[in-house]
Amino acid sequence: MRGAVLHGPGDVRVEERRDPEIVAPTDAIIRLTAACVCGSDLWPYRGLEENGDPAPMGHEYVGVVEEVGPEVTTVRPGQFVVGSFWASDNTCEICRAGYQSGCVNRVLMASIGTQAQFARIPLADGTLVATPGMPEPELIPSLLAASDVLGTGWFGAVAAAAGPGKTVVVVGDGAVGLCGVLAARHFGAERIIAMSRHESRQELARRFGATDIVTERGDEGVARIMELTNGLGAHSVIEAVGTQSSMTQAMRSTRPGGHIGFVGYAHDVALPGDELFFSLVHLHGGPAPVREYLPELIDLIWRRVIDPGQVFDLTLPLEQAAEGYRAMDERRAVKVLLTP
Amino acid sequence: MRGAVLHGPGDVRVEERRDPEIVAPTDAIIRLTAACVCGSDLWPYRGLEENGDPAPMGHEYVGVVEEVGPEVTTVRPGQFVVGSFWASDNTCEICRAGYQSGCVNRVLMASIGTQAQFARIPLADGTLVATPGMPEPELIPSLLAASDVLGTGWFGAVAAAAGPGKTVVVVGDGAVGLCGVLAARHFGAERIIAMSRHESRQELARRFGATDIVTERGDEGVARIMELTNGLGAHSVIEAVGTQSSMTQAMRSTRPGGHIGFVGYAHDVALPGDELFFSLVHLHGGPAPVREYLPELIDLIWRRVIDPGQVFDLTLPLEQAAEGYRAMDERRAVKVLLTP
Repeated sequence: MRGAVLHGPGDVRVEERRDPEIVAPTDAIIRLTAACVCGSDLWPYRGLEENGDPAPMGHEYVGVVEEVGPEVTTVRPGQFVVGSFWASDNTCEICRAGYQSGCVNRVLMASIGTQAQFARIPLADGTLVATPGMPEPELIPSLLAASDVLGTGWFGAVAAAAGPGKTVVVVGDGAVGLCGVLAARHFGAERIIAMSRHESRQELARRFGATDIVTERGDEGVARIMELTNGLGAHSVIEAVGTQSSMTQAMRSTRPGGHIGFVGYAHDVALPGDELFFSLVHLHGGPAPVREYLPELIDLIWRRVIDPGQVFDLTLPLEQAAEGYRAMDERRAVKVLLTP
Repeated sequence: MRGAVLHGPGDVRVEERRDPEIVAPTDAIIRLTAACVCGSDLWPYRGLEENGDPAPMGHEYVGVVEEVGPEVTTVRPGQFVVGSFWASDNTCEICRAGYQSGCVNRVLMASIGTQAQFARIPLADGTLVATPGMPEPELIPSLLAASDVLGTGWFGAVAAAAGPGKTVVVVGDGAVGLCGVLAARHFGAERIIAMSRHESRQELARRFGATDIVTERGDEGVARIMELTNGLGAHSVIEAVGTQSSMTQAMRSTRPGGHIGFVGYAHDVALPGDELFFSLVHLHGGPAPVREYLPELIDLIWRRVIDPGQVFDLTLPLEQAAEGYRAMDERRAVKVLLTP
């Protein structure tokens, strides 16, 4: 099969990879209908994270089940499925508490690489969710978004305790941040402040439910949030970047007793204990337990209540994955969909 | 009046201080029935925190109202009162959300110094709570504990989401940690693991409700917690020390999706963002909103449901405050009560 492989910083190639096979009786093989490039793929692409080159790339996926192992009972060949970027058994104590991304048997799908024609999905029963039928083509991008960025933005909004009467700040205007806006809106937040300097992303944020846009950053960004919140700070902040400055922005924009949902994959971040202590904020985040939300997200997409697929603003054939990485790296695209 | 003043590291003197007076119409003056030395007083005492010598010391207090300003309506002269170590208006939006320690008008009582015969209490209506009558002498230590260490341990247990069916680890066997054990027990935690190497503190922890004692620390301490929790980690961890190693201990002892209540006043702590991210824990803490809990705590003490006053294992006249500091510094005493 064909698949994207990172050979070193900036060097993504689509090449022949071995067809996946059932390894464990709980595996499934899917034929990908669509895959995509994630903001977190840019960390190794930019050489900012060791990945062990050459490495197969991609962890988001939707597709049709080709084959299942003998112990798989909840999905069958021919079904259209969406799965999380962490494979999970969905039965352990951690999964049952709603933290499938911390499953004791979890497998990181990035280690398998779903920017490809086929993929092996470990722990298929605990990882995949079948859609009610074959989706209309226009639903594919939204279902694909559910595999990671939507589920991650959703978790950010849950962790930030977004809800009625709340003012929610979203730090980061990538696909996750934008999906955080959408989730905060879905949860009934009163005011949603998107921090963004990019006109097209601001527009999408507004379409997803942002009521205000803040273009300032750093101390000026904090000052602007304070102005908009009677000097108190926001009730809820979704941090969707993962840098020291974005975490600082989040901490200083949250009122005492408020909640930060941090879902930007943290790199080289050190949180000063004293500042965190005196901030009195709630901090929760990490790799999103997407599997927990998938049934609800699929239902909302299927009924066309939400349309997160709008985060994809560039579609390319899998063979042009390298161009997709470049477009995201240069911020020419919010998110790139790849068709195998 | 007489009061304790820190003149430099290790140099506490009880000397003449000016009698306090009503400054703002919302002030009250109280005559202290008892004061005490806090673990956090040891930071400047040990020269680990700049305090601006000479500095009046103490922020915990119970006593009888002597005088109130013209705008004070909820307490009156002659009443016995307990107050928080933060003065708060208890009316602002932050207070109403239960975060009086983040009150927009808060005043740190440590800046006033309650290891003294009298103290001015700013924002008396929002800070003080009167007891139902004059307390029996044996209730004084428990009511004094409510002013900080009990309220802080309580907040730790709330922030750690201690409750029925939960395994709670308490890091730190000082008065706050021990009160955290008591609070976790009150909230119905199934299992309470106190981390302590001191026999007398272990004994008090057991009396307060600890079901297990772990004497190991660092990696060995984490390994022991994992053994006791099926390799998953605790649901809830109360961190009551405030050092890098205690925070690390807390983070690594908590299961994915679990809660850390951190109430140890953080000093020189930097939390690694990536470890925090992948731990999937909830982190919440800071200076406790004691005022939020005071009515309930006073009621529980008054009805003799809880007896947190047992944390005081040394009582000295105020004049011997210096010996009280030494005893706590050398860990000869858990907590020292001072009688003016």
